[in-house]
Amino acid sequence: MNRLCIHTITTKPWTTEQCIERYSKAGVGGITFWRYNLDGRSPSTVGQQARDAGLQIVSLCRGGFFPGKTAAERQTSIDDNKLCIDQAQALGAPLIVLVCGAVPGQPLSESRKQITEGIAAVQAHAEAAGVRLAIEPLHPMYADDRSAVNTMRQAHEICDALGSPASVGIAADVYHIWWDPELKAMIDLAGEKGRLHAYHICDWKTPTTDLLNDRGLMGEGCINIPEITQWVDGTGFAGLREVEIFSHKYWAMDQDEWLASIINAYKRL
Amino acid sequence: MNRLCIHTITTKPWTTEQCIERYSKAGVGGITFWRYNLDGRSPSTVGQQARDAGLQIVSLCRGGFFPGKTAAERQTSIDDNKLCIDQAQALGAPLIVLVCGAVPGQPLSESRKQITEGIAAVQAHAEAAGVRLAIEPLHPMYADDRSAVNTMRQAHEICDALGSPASVGIAADVYHIWWDPELKAMIDLAGEKGRLHAYHICDWKTPTTDLLNDRGLMGEGCINIPEITQWVDGTGFAGLREVEIFSHKYWAMDQDEWLASIINAYKRL
Repeated sequence: MNRLCIHTITTKPWTTEQCIERYSKAGVGGITFWRYNLDGRSPSTVGQQARDAGLQIVSLCRGGFFPGKTAAERQTSIDDNKLCIDQAQALGAPLIVLVCGAVPGQPLSESRKQITEGIAAVQAHAEAAGVRLAIEPLHPMYADDRSAVNTMRQAHEICDALGSPASVGIAADVYHIWWDPELKAMIDLAGEKGRLHAYHICDWKTPTTDLLNDRGLMGEGCINIPEITQWVDGTGFAGLREVEIFSHKYWAMDQDEWLASIINAYKRL
Repeated sequence: MNRLCIHTITTKPWTTEQCIERYSKAGVGGITFWRYNLDGRSPSTVGQQARDAGLQIVSLCRGGFFPGKTAAERQTSIDDNKLCIDQAQALGAPLIVLVCGAVPGQPLSESRKQITEGIAAVQAHAEAAGVRLAIEPLHPMYADDRSAVNTMRQAHEICDALGSPASVGIAADVYHIWWDPELKAMIDLAGEKGRLHAYHICDWKTPTTDLLNDRGLMGEGCINIPEITQWVDGTGFAGLREVEIFSHKYWAMDQDEWLASIINAYKRL
């Protein structure tokens, strides 16, 4: 249980305070906050509340969205990422997950160049704050407007282009990468390079009825989570397994029952 | 216009006979039939009707779905693919598009092995019938239950494993492969190997509201179709550009207006 982390968006109907209280009461080890959790609140207070409740703060979701059609748009994004870094520092989150962004119609190679430039522009700010950055490859079905980084290999290429700074790594989410024939090799490489900064779990349902908000609970879909977890742990990864599930179906449930289901599914893994 | 082909499923509300009549009247060069078009009809009669209407029959959609949990299931699929080959021969379709299949929860590598074995089992039958087979890589969002072949590279690997028979090639559909960073290299390779058997076009809408039936008309999405078409034609490909659009939205339209929209979008390309 001390390696189980839950993303607050998984129990979206709950307030920030409810998430902290209920996760803690259920014995969950860690919490990943989403930025909406900080709305109208002091990040340092939220961080203290979580720590007081015995929760390890794993990361803050999410920075990124670096590509833009104009330099002004890209600068706005860089500024927002710096703010996100400041928030993470105040919160006490050692990591920010980057959903890197894409502009519909712009070549993905150009977007990846802008993503690399964007990360380069905020990297020193992150290092000064003691906050690491994790590039999250997103499933190719999000390549139109959410991320031009769609495979672990592409995330590695961006880390390489940045000169492999220790502060920039990869967030591996089974939902996005389970289908990739190179997956084990790319996880191994992330281990070798010290780039495996986060590990997210959920499942892929058949059928999936919504591109965004129909993720499955671990065990109800086609992803071989035990095998991928073994690969991840095999690299020496000792971080938490973060449950991140966007689901209209589960958000409509009683959230206490939903949390109990998550914990049961995690224990069955 | 003589290089424009339409898949009958694009105008799904029309009967087989309506598709033939309306496509012909509109000056469309070719037609790809779906197997449901043959229900209750003689394939050879349908083929003759299309040729009499001046339409080139490009292919029959679709064979495939080779993986199965049991040998009996896989044999049923092989038998059905042989039937599909017989239908294509009677129809006068020189090509069958293969949606290769996947079994939820079965390792994709195992499904690809079964796909290779399945194609091997029907290849002689196809060659005897004068019908070619085209492996269609499907978008990774269909890796759970529709196809374990999700990139052009994987399609090439299966062709290689089969010993590169001239009868087995690839159907390149922009919807499935547009995001692939290796796309140009893999199209070029298909040209070199003589494997580029078919080229399908449509577009990827932002947002896409349905995983299956919300494809866009060329020009309304993020896919750079002119560039990919240039790559395809650059290999010496002289086949037809096949419009294949599954769309609840467009199927709800007056289908004559929809056909006119398709032709306008094609001309604008």
